[in-house]
Amino acid sequence: MTEPDTESGAAFAPVTAPDADAAAAARARQAQLTKPPGSLGRLEELSIWAASCQGACPPRMLTRPRVVVFAADHGVTAAGVSAFPSAVTGQMVTNFEAGGAAINVLAEVAGATVRVADIAVDCAEPLSAAIGAHKVRRGSGNIAVEDALTEAEAVTAVTAGRRIADEEVDAGADLLIAGDMGIGNTTAATTLVAALTGAEPVVVVGRGTGIDDFGWMRKAAAVRDALYRARAVTGDPVGLLRVCGGADLAALAGFCAQAAQRRTPVLLDGLVVTAAALVAEQLAPGARAWWQAGHRSTEPAHSLALAQLGLEPIVDLGMRLGEGTGAALALPIVRAAIATLASMATFDEAGISAQT
Amino acid sequence: MTEPDTESGAAFAPVTAPDADAAAAARARQAQLTKPPGSLGRLEELSIWAASCQGACPPRMLTRPRVVVFAADHGVTAAGVSAFPSAVTGQMVTNFEAGGAAINVLAEVAGATVRVADIAVDCAEPLSAAIGAHKVRRGSGNIAVEDALTEAEAVTAVTAGRRIADEEVDAGADLLIAGDMGIGNTTAATTLVAALTGAEPVVVVGRGTGIDDFGWMRKAAAVRDALYRARAVTGDPVGLLRVCGGADLAALAGFCAQAAQRRTPVLLDGLVVTAAALVAEQLAPGARAWWQAGHRSTEPAHSLALAQLGLEPIVDLGMRLGEGTGAALALPIVRAAIATLASMATFDEAGISAQT
Repeated sequence: MTEPDTESGAAFAPVTAPDADAAAAARARQAQLTKPPGSLGRLEELSIWAASCQGACPPRMLTRPRVVVFAADHGVTAAGVSAFPSAVTGQMVTNFEAGGAAINVLAEVAGATVRVADIAVDCAEPLSAAIGAHKVRRGSGNIAVEDALTEAEAVTAVTAGRRIADEEVDAGADLLIAGDMGIGNTTAATTLVAALTGAEPVVVVGRGTGIDDFGWMRKAAAVRDALYRARAVTGDPVGLLRVCGGADLAALAGFCAQAAQRRTPVLLDGLVVTAAALVAEQLAPGARAWWQAGHRSTEPAHSLALAQLGLEPIVDLGMRLGEGTGAALALPIVRAAIATLASMATFDEAGISAQT
Repeated sequence: MTEPDTESGAAFAPVTAPDADAAAAARARQAQLTKPPGSLGRLEELSIWAASCQGACPPRMLTRPRVVVFAADHGVTAAGVSAFPSAVTGQMVTNFEAGGAAINVLAEVAGATVRVADIAVDCAEPLSAAIGAHKVRRGSGNIAVEDALTEAEAVTAVTAGRRIADEEVDAGADLLIAGDMGIGNTTAATTLVAALTGAEPVVVVGRGTGIDDFGWMRKAAAVRDALYRARAVTGDPVGLLRVCGGADLAALAGFCAQAAQRRTPVLLDGLVVTAAALVAEQLAPGARAWWQAGHRSTEPAHSLALAQLGLEPIVDLGMRLGEGTGAALALPIVRAAIATLASMATFDEAGISAQT
C-alpha cells in the first residue's frame, strides 16, 4: 500500500501548530513593555500570533505581504442571483491589472502587492498567460441544478490553489491575503456555509453586491436547491466543492490549507474566502491556527463561518466587497501589533516604576 | 460693550461645518467607483468626511498627521485610584521623548509624528523647554476633596490647548490626534463623563490601568465625591474643568475645540480625550463634526461619552492604554478611505458594465 501524495491534490499532511515557544516568549515580552499589562488588547494577541507563526520573538516586520485575488464565474448567475452581469468578472480582472480596483488601492496603502489568478473566468482566453497559468475551466456549473465541477476538476482546482500558495511562499511572501472576484460567488459560498454549519437558507442568504428583494428570493431558492444536493456530501470536503462550490472556492481552499502547510500566516477576507477556509479546515485540520479573520462582512453567512472557525474579525466596518479588501484594511493593524513587540521599550530599559 | 475675545481663553467663535459641497461631490464619486454602491461601508463615510474637512474632492492624502500627548498628574492619586504611582507620568514623558512608548511605535507605523506637552506633570522642571512651553501647574487638586484648578488656571489651560492646536495647524498638520498620559487621569475623565451624561459612578467607573477590586471601590468613591461637587456646575464647561477636571483635560478640550475652529480634522482616542471632547463640544458647539472616534476603549465611561457625541468608533480592539494609541490604529483606515476616492477607477474609466 502506498502513502497518499500529500504534496498535491486534496490530501494534506498533518498541519503542525505555530511555534509555542515563540508565543510564550512574546507573551512574556508583552508583559515587560512600558504599558499596563493587557492594555493593548487584541494587538497583544496578534503580536503573539505573529511571533508564533514566524517562530521568532520579537517577530520581524512584514516585508512582503501578498494579496491573491481568485477570479471565476459561476453558472448560477443564470438563476438571477446577482445585481451585476457575469461579464463584470472579466472586466474586473482587467481593472485589477490596471490597478484601478479597491484592492489595488487598499493594498498599496497597506504596503502589500496584488496578484490576480483567473481560475474559472468565463472568457475564451485569460487576460495574460500569467493570470491564466492555473485556470481550471470557463465558469462553473449552475449549482441550483447541477454540480459546479467534476470530481477531477475539483481536485485540479484545489491543487491550483496549493501551487499558487507555493509560488508565493517560495517568492518570499511573509503573509498571504486571500481575495475573491466573481459575479455569483456569494451564492456558492453561502451554500457551502449552510452545508457546513447546518443553517437554513433564509438565515444565511445576504444581498451580495446589492440585489433587491426579488433577487434575494431567487438567490435563496438557488441556495436551497443546491443545499438539497449538498446534504449528501457534507462530510466530504472535495464532494462539497464539486457539488455546490466552484473552481475558485476549491482553489481558495487549497490556498488557505497550503499556506498553513507552509507555515505562512493568512488574513482571511469576507464570505467567499471564509467559506473556502471552512472547507480548508476540513481538508487540513489545524490550518486555522495560521489564519486571522481580517474583517466582518455584512453577509450573514460570514459571521456563521467565522464562529464555526472560532475566529474573531480584526475590523468591522460594514464592508461587503470581497477582493481581499477587508483583510487589506486589517493588515496595518497586524503590522502595528508586530511593531509593539519589536520596538517598544521595556520597563527596565525605560527606568519606569512598577505597578503597585 | 466689547465683543468677547474668541481667539484665546474659553470663548469660541461659532464653529462652521465641514464643506457640504465637497461632501456631495465625494458621495457622488463613491457611487461611480468600480464596486457595488455602499460595499466599502464605513470607508465611504470616512472618505466623504475627509473630503468635507478638506473642502476638496477627491481629498488629498494626509501628509502630516500629528499626535499630541497631553501629560499631567492628578492629586486624586492620593486616594489610591491607580495601579501605578504618580512618578510614572514623568517617567513616561521621558519614554515618549526617547521613542519607546506604544504611541511612538504605533504613530511611526501609521506615518504620524508625536509631540508631548507637559501640561501639569508633578515635577520641578519640565523635561525640556519645548515640552513645558504650555505648562499650567504641577499636578491638579485632589478632586475627591477639592477643586482641580482655580478658575484662572482652567482658562489658562484651555488656552494652552488652543495654542498647541494653532501651532500644529500653522506648522502644516492635516490631521490631529489627541492623546493623554497621566496617572489618575481616568478618575477625572470618568467624573466629567458622569457629570455630562447623568450616569451614576457605579456604571461609569472602570479599571483604568488595571486596579483591583479594592482600587475600583476607592476610585468609585472618589468619583462619587467629585461628582457631588460637580453637580452644581454641569451647565458650565469651564466650571466643570475647574471642579472635577484637571489642566490636561482643560487643555485637551481647548485643543479639540480649536482644531475644529481651524477646520482641521481630529481623531479622538479613548476615555480621557473623549471626556475632554464632551466638554469641548459645550465650549464650541458643532466642533464634533470635525472629529471621528478612533477606537472604543474598554472603559465603560468611554462608550457613554461616544454615544453622547454621536460618534461611532472606527476600531474596537479591547484597548485601554490612552496616549493616542487607539486613534493611531485608526489612522491607516482613514488613509485607506481617502485613497479609495483619490485613486480608484470609475465604472466609465474601467469600461465595466453597470448594475442590472
